Amino acid sequence: MKNSFGTSVRTTVFGESHGPFIGAVIDGLSPGMVIDDSFIRHQLSLRRPSGSFSTSRVESDEFQIVSGVFNGRSTGTPLCILIPNTAHRSADYDKLSSVARPGHADYAAQCKYHGYQDYRGGGHFSGRITAALVAAGAVVIPSLKEKGILIGTHVRSCAGIQDICFSSDEPVLRKQLACLGDKVFATLDDDAACGMKAAIEKASTEGDSVGGVLETAISGLPSGLGEPWFDTIEGLLSHALFSIPAIKGVQFGSGFDMVDGRGSAFNDSFAMEDGKVVTLTNNNGGINGGITNGMPVVFRCAVKPTPSISKTQKTVDFKELADTEISVGGRHDPAIIHRARVVVDSVVALVLYDVLVGRFGSDFFAGN
Amino acid sequence: MKNSFGTSVRTTVFGESHGPFIGAVIDGLSPGMVIDDSFIRHQLSLRRPSGSFSTSRVESDEFQIVSGVFNGRSTGTPLCILIPNTAHRSADYDKLSSVARPGHADYAAQCKYHGYQDYRGGGHFSGRITAALVAAGAVVIPSLKEKGILIGTHVRSCAGIQDICFSSDEPVLRKQLACLGDKVFATLDDDAACGMKAAIEKASTEGDSVGGVLETAISGLPSGLGEPWFDTIEGLLSHALFSIPAIKGVQFGSGFDMVDGRGSAFNDSFAMEDGKVVTLTNNNGGINGGITNGMPVVFRCAVKPTPSISKTQKTVDFKELADTEISVGGRHDPAIIHRARVVVDSVVALVLYDVLVGRFGSDFFAGN
Amino acid sequence: MKNSFGTSVRTTVFGESHGPFIGAVIDGLSPGMVIDDSFIRHQLSLRRPSGSFSTSRVESDEFQIVSGVFNGRSTGTPLCILIPNTAHRSADYDKLSSVARPGHADYAAQCKYHGYQDYRGGGHFSGRITAALVAAGAVVIPSLKEKGILIGTHVRSCAGIQDICFSSDEPVLRKQLACLGDKVFATLDDDAACGMKAAIEKASTEGDSVGGVLETAISGLPSGLGEPWFDTIEGLLSHALFSIPAIKGVQFGSGFDMVDGRGSAFNDSFAMEDGKVVTLTNNNGGINGGITNGMPVVFRCAVKPTPSISKTQKTVDFKELADTEISVGGRHDPAIIHRARVVVDSVVALVLYDVLVGRFGSDFFAGN
Amino acid sequence: MKNSFGTSVRTTVFGESHGPFIGAVIDGLSPGMVIDDSFIRHQLSLRRPSGSFSTSRVESDEFQIVSGVFNGRSTGTPLCILIPNTAHRSADYDKLSSVARPGHADYAAQCKYHGYQDYRGGGHFSGRITAALVAAGAVVIPSLKEKGILIGTHVRSCAGIQDICFSSDEPVLRKQLACLGDKVFATLDDDAACGMKAAIEKASTEGDSVGGVLETAISGLPSGLGEPWFDTIEGLLSHALFSIPAIKGVQFGSGFDMVDGRGSAFNDSFAMEDGKVVTLTNNNGGINGGITNGMPVVFRCAVKPTPSISKTQKTVDFKELADTEISVGGRHDPAIIHRARVVVDSVVALVLYDVLVGRFGSDFFAGN
Repeated sequence: MKNSFGTSVRTTVFGESHGPFIGAVIDGLSPGMVIDDSFIRHQLSLRRPSGSFSTSRVESDEFQIVSGVFNGRSTGTPLCILIPNTAHRSADYDKLSSVARPGHADYAAQCKYHGYQDYRGGGHFSGRITAALVAAGAVVIPSLKEKGILIGTHVRSCAGIQDICFSSDEPVLRKQLACLGDKVFATLDDDAACGMKAAIEKASTEGDSVGGVLETAISGLPSGLGEPWFDTIEGLLSHALFSIPAIKGVQFGSGFDMVDGRGSAFNDSFAMEDGKVVTLTNNNGGINGGITNGMPVVFRCAVKPTPSISKTQKTVDFKELADTEISVGGRHDPAIIHRARVVVDSVVALVLYDVLVGRFGSDFFAGN
Repeated sequence: MKNSFGTSVRTTVFGESHGPFIGAVIDGLSPGMVIDDSFIRHQLSLRRPSGSFSTSRVESDEFQIVSGVFNGRSTGTPLCILIPNTAHRSADYDKLSSVARPGHADYAAQCKYHGYQDYRGGGHFSGRITAALVAAGAVVIPSLKEKGILIGTHVRSCAGIQDICFSSDEPVLRKQLACLGDKVFATLDDDAACGMKAAIEKASTEGDSVGGVLETAISGLPSGLGEPWFDTIEGLLSHALFSIPAIKGVQFGSGFDMVDGRGSAFNDSFAMEDGKVVTLTNNNGGINGGITNGMPVVFRCAVKPTPSISKTQKTVDFKELADTEISVGGRHDPAIIHRARVVVDSVVALVLYDVLVGRFGSDFFAGN
Repeated sequence: MKNSFGTSVRTTVFGESHGPFIGAVIDGLSPGMVIDDSFIRHQLSLRRPSGSFSTSRVESDEFQIVSGVFNGRSTGTPLCILIPNTAHRSADYDKLSSVARPGHADYAAQCKYHGYQDYRGGGHFSGRITAALVAAGAVVIPSLKEKGILIGTHVRSCAGIQDICFSSDEPVLRKQLACLGDKVFATLDDDAACGMKAAIEKASTEGDSVGGVLETAISGLPSGLGEPWFDTIEGLLSHALFSIPAIKGVQFGSGFDMVDGRGSAFNDSFAMEDGKVVTLTNNNGGINGGITNGMPVVFRCAVKPTPSISKTQKTVDFKELADTEISVGGRHDPAIIHRARVVVDSVVALVLYDVLVGRFGSDFFAGN
Repeated sequence: MKNSFGTSVRTTVFGESHGPFIGAVIDGLSPGMVIDDSFIRHQLSLRRPSGSFSTSRVESDEFQIVSGVFNGRSTGTPLCILIPNTAHRSADYDKLSSVARPGHADYAAQCKYHGYQDYRGGGHFSGRITAALVAAGAVVIPSLKEKGILIGTHVRSCAGIQDICFSSDEPVLRKQLACLGDKVFATLDDDAACGMKAAIEKASTEGDSVGGVLETAISGLPSGLGEPWFDTIEGLLSHALFSIPAIKGVQFGSGFDMVDGRGSAFNDSFAMEDGKVVTLTNNNGGINGGITNGMPVVFRCAVKPTPSISKTQKTVDFKELADTEISVGGRHDPAIIHRARVVVDSVVALVLYDVLVGRFGSDFFAGN
């Protein structure tokens, strides 16, 4: 399906870093959903760089919904959202047209597109495109909230500094998720954020970059979602998550932490609680056999250190087929993890919206 | 797309653990591929339980290709492969119909299918269904090999015991991959396998189970495969991999090992080698921006400890909505990681076959 | 999507005329639907040749549902239905391996499959495969009926002999649809059937064949189904209908009869009737802008004369690339229109089932 | 898949008649195709109303390609094309918000979207959206031409006046197709166009509208395209064609003209001609068993009389649920058939482009 995903509700992204617009089309929305421009603007602001620990390229991220909305509500027809690119300085990139930035897609793009790709600023591979995903996610997140579904992501670790974990108590978790919504650098423990920012700035002054781990929780999702084979909830989420630049690993529940343990330690025992079936632990991250079991869905993403660094690196000129060196100029992020977390939330929201419409029908969010 | 995957070449699985047949349909195969029944039989034998570290339920895994093959070659029309279930002892499972086995899909299935699911032996969720995936993978693996593409998976760790890693030297790697093909318990270091088997038996005698990590390498894949958004190679592989029972994490290249490091340490520098662009390290696992870069694709899967254990566990009866206990009887595996590796290879082969046909056309493997 | 169709509920067919089995997989059924084996058998009997106006190859059409059904109800997992081929006489076809039968797919198949196709009896192109479609349709038709949706097709004309039309009065129409279910040669006027059969026998004795028009009506479908672009109800139905062998035209409502007329004559005026919006005529066949409007959906299919005739015809040997002649031996139908009508009903049922699940969710038919 | 189509190359349309933009996204284009803005402009001009036989709403149809093109060539990433709406006069439509125009989608849209649809000018159902399809088609038509594939459509009949037919001699046909490209009112015989225009004007002065038949031919298509089941060439084309407003029937080759005839008259005999397999007649419209056979693909579409007429018609107010009358004001076409023909060509081009990329790979049109 290439640059789109979803079965019942399909999201397509388009655009290049230095083209006139980037954008997204969402096809299959329920009619009558309130479309909240100020929330979209808010979500875009969370992705926007800020502070000394981010790139100095700051887009205003004005957006325009050009279809699918009438009188402030979704019509049910394809919704296209456009975001103009206004702050690009293409000259920064001209010399990069054939020198592959290590850790970037430049060379892979050359192999795929045979030199016809728009190489400026990473073109269609640019993290800039995630603004379209954030805007698209912001279209559906309020409707998920109306159904009691909360999604939140925090920086679990960055540059080796750890945040605390999500609570295993669901009411507490829901408060944590609600709080994350407004944080520019989202940690559960504010002190952790301070340490992380300092570490990012240190890496930045050394011409280097850092990565980390994002932890996401989803509370309020109905049980019984997903398919046993292929369209498992893990499979659907990871399929979309891996397209977020720099994400190189996804694990659900206790993931890689379970590999040395035993079944008796990691099986999640079931129990009755207030007339509801729950599990006493959540090592499976709310998913058994690919299907939600009613517990919070919890997963973590490995975010590799941002590849753009000013330190000199060995590389090749892929047109000349010759060794060379590069020091990536332009305006770059020494870390993107704090900006990526709202992208994760957005992608997750779009995946869940699709799954819920598939399960409950195209009117599930109608008039929400 | 539910219980099928693939855009240009679609694989669908069907069947229940205790039904008459399980099977798979592959639609979109190139015509004229040699279909090698003995290789299919061999691959199925690698998945089949054996030794004291596996379940004592042994299926003969006779299979029949009922369509899409004529005179020993694929016709290009949908290929359906059937595998009869012959060794089921349903009585083992009758009492489980409403008692949820911890770590299993029983309760999630109840939520999804409202009690209409075939609960015997896990029904459609059973690991048994992976035999159909293995058979389907075995249909396409020889054609990938003809194109120089080798796929192999070893047990990187099990019960805390480590195997050595894949070589970073591609000719050596290709020899390693070739050797893995015939191993029943696939490690690169045979001593590691001995240790792992002993640990599995120990867990088994204690009524418990173990997990581990599978590491997979793909050598010979053309560069330029994959899409920048959503249908990234990471996204396509993880989407399919997460449907293999017990896999709870997937990471590419150095994955979670990169999260505390810096860009300068983990960016893969490019260099010319014999007129070819290579990277000096492979922390990105052969994939940049979702697209193959010509280096081996390397990834690891977290396999949780097998959930079926004879130790007594707390659980619920989900029809009575009451707390209860369970000790899972029947014939179960104290570890499935050594059997899962051929399932990983098979799923990977089917994903790559689809991607290659999408890129090079439906005749790419014709007359192979 | 090749040899499958459907977004929320996907049907895949497989098999060759002279292979061991043909079959279908339906993925996405609601759980808990009663699966009525005797109804499946009945539907298959309507497709089966009978009388002197049909081929003398008669299959018993024993079928086996090998997955997705438990205790007589759908489980919600993929349902695979197998039909063994028992009556093939491959020798009839051996000489045809490279001589293209005019009007058949032999030569087109050669172009597509490069000689690897199973040429015996038309292989995967055989009308025989429609038995799998009929069986699959018979799985879902009872659930549609439970929702008040009736589907029926009659032979509107054959060999130039006309049947009467469906009534424009819906209660009468529903009676007509109910009556069609049991007819082997389905016309609304029994005298028409007599005339048609005589005409078919006449053509048969002259070594020739005939075609005709099938008219289908669907009553009880909710309004508001379909999409404005591409997945219009017309588009979804015609997409599937054109794969029924010999169908070369599909028209909705008054179709080609409107082309010389004026808007004032063919616009369907709306009116209130018993508190419900209806149209006073139904020239649009129950569909406006691709969406159902609550009136019966009515369409007609052009069925070309059966291509297999014993009369000598000019053709080529596509391996020798030489002109030659052919008189098609074997057992063939001088008309297939009366057998095709149950195939039309089945395909329509599968399309509608998919659309309804997409609209109302995957449990829409649960426990039906 | 809702408002998109295509497997290897997917086209999505968005927009409402009175919104700021309509547009389309094409995902899966080969990289390196020359994108010819002047050709896109030319194609849009053929769809634009002109003369006294068309609506007086004339859009300038300025368009902007906002992604997927770099230095005048396709990049291979999603191409988004925007067309601003500039000439709308919403006041014309305000009173229509709940009065269903007979023959239009107003009431069906109400049933589907529950009153949230943008009712102005037909909203997403408007023929205006076909401008986006024409622009999208114009992106790929030059690449098809480069491969020798010509597509053309003429007004075979309108208001009862007949044009001549396409030639059965392929070199003559190719000249006819080449000539059609520049005609505003495309007939093969210019006298026919004069008669048709007069008839349209007559209907217009009488407050009425007319329909007709479009005939399309495709020359130069490789043999062996299409699938035996569901994704037949007929199925793929009709699926897309039925979304063009007012098309209510599609027939291939001799279609409904064959229904009263015999196999011996309509089977297309094969013969060798200049070393190539041809058929001596083309009643099957270049398609056997759903697969192209190398002959021109020929089909006809029934275009119903335009539903917007100024004559007073009976209808209902679907909010008041009351009978009422309507005389459709605003600026409307007494015929759209001459404007629809370029829409047909565009849709056909997009379908074929998808099929060709599926068959020959994603680089098939690269650097074209």
